[in-house]
Amino acid sequence: MQTKRIMCIVKYDGSKFFGYQIQPKGRTVQQEIERALKKICKTEITTHAAGRTDSGVHALGQVFHFDSTLEMEASRYKMAFNSILPQDIYIMASKEVDSTWHARFHAISKEYHYRLSTNEYDPLTCDYIYYHRQRLNVEKMKEAMTYFLGRHDFTSFTANMESIDKQRTIYQSEIIVHDEGNYTFRFVGTGFMKYMVRIMVGTLIQVGLSKIYPEEIPLILAAKNRNFAGPTAKSEGLYLHSVEYEVK
Amino acid sequence: MQTKRIMCIVKYDGSKFFGYQIQPKGRTVQQEIERALKKICKTEITTHAAGRTDSGVHALGQVFHFDSTLEMEASRYKMAFNSILPQDIYIMASKEVDSTWHARFHAISKEYHYRLSTNEYDPLTCDYIYYHRQRLNVEKMKEAMTYFLGRHDFTSFTANMESIDKQRTIYQSEIIVHDEGNYTFRFVGTGFMKYMVRIMVGTLIQVGLSKIYPEEIPLILAAKNRNFAGPTAKSEGLYLHSVEYEVK
Repeated sequence: MQTKRIMCIVKYDGSKFFGYQIQPKGRTVQQEIERALKKICKTEITTHAAGRTDSGVHALGQVFHFDSTLEMEASRYKMAFNSILPQDIYIMASKEVDSTWHARFHAISKEYHYRLSTNEYDPLTCDYIYYHRQRLNVEKMKEAMTYFLGRHDFTSFTANMESIDKQRTIYQSEIIVHDEGNYTFRFVGTGFMKYMVRIMVGTLIQVGLSKIYPEEIPLILAAKNRNFAGPTAKSEGLYLHSVEYEVK
Repeated sequence: MQTKRIMCIVKYDGSKFFGYQIQPKGRTVQQEIERALKKICKTEITTHAAGRTDSGVHALGQVFHFDSTLEMEASRYKMAFNSILPQDIYIMASKEVDSTWHARFHAISKEYHYRLSTNEYDPLTCDYIYYHRQRLNVEKMKEAMTYFLGRHDFTSFTANMESIDKQRTIYQSEIIVHDEGNYTFRFVGTGFMKYMVRIMVGTLIQVGLSKIYPEEIPLILAAKNRNFAGPTAKSEGLYLHSVEYEVK
């Protein structure tokens, strides 16, 4: 039997899960995916994702891979998964990759979006947009965002206690204004540590409220101390938008 | 103590409730509203809504009223409610009305919307839009919708077993095409019986699939038999958009 390595792109509603990674306390995305995979392949198979997402965080393009000896076209896993998975998880695509390809180790960048609205609260979208009822100064937030660009030590902007090296590179950071009071904060970078996007957004909100000056961002970075940055923004606005890989 | 009659406009995420009306089996919108009202007024108060909505059905502008002897500006109920209510219910407005005004009896028309998409399934909006993966002929559905306009006996289009008079008037019925494959069916009428909008939409989908001809709608109405209409469309796409009252 020949082993194939399969990669899948998956979209999920984070508000329905205790995060991506399997854990004892509650329902997770990985648990549902591996349960479905066991039904497809009739054997336990471990999957490897590009990264974790926390409880409440959504994904539009999370990526994972696994190995299987099943004799089935790689593209057919999409339909096989979607006929089994619960309605809050959906496989966008499945394809065969090289046996050495790895969803986490070969990712070259990730894109995260954070949706925020300063308009009147909406109970139908409150799991998908963070409602913040105070007006924000967008020009100041845009100015502050430019300071995140490039390679920096993000110790002040993470709850990560594990890694020694907290240097990360941010390639793109911008605010998209959809309409009055309706914003998406967009970040593309080599990797994002625990709570990193949410602490950057929480700090940008403080800038928008004129409680932190844009020029203070470099000082907060230099402090390498979590206490200097703003609070962690709530999970509901955050989306893992996509993961980039080198094209071979 | 003077009694004031207060009317409120309320928005809620129907996917989180077992319908509007209080019932023993599960959490309902009315139950949450009356629980909050008890906290505000320190006494049990019954509320009266414009109508019920079924399990899974959303409201953008449901209306209810109640009487209270509390000495508080009517407009302040909005904030009082919203500081107590759970995140899936939100009061849009509160105001004082005449002591004879009634949310159900004085409604002159209601507007319902049904959202449907024939695009690829999205796990993040599947509680708010009905995903139907087959292409639909919009021109045929538009033609069929015109037959609902006016006063008709809607026996074929309801699961209502109670009322004797099943005549209702539909003032407006149209399909709004947001973008390719993304539709809202809009109905304005004097009143809608149990499952009436969902059976009309279920029948229109059959028209869009060319399984029922538009010209068959008058025959289905004339049959006065539920078996002649199409299936009941799923609840997740349905919204009580607004309730109209006579302006005094």
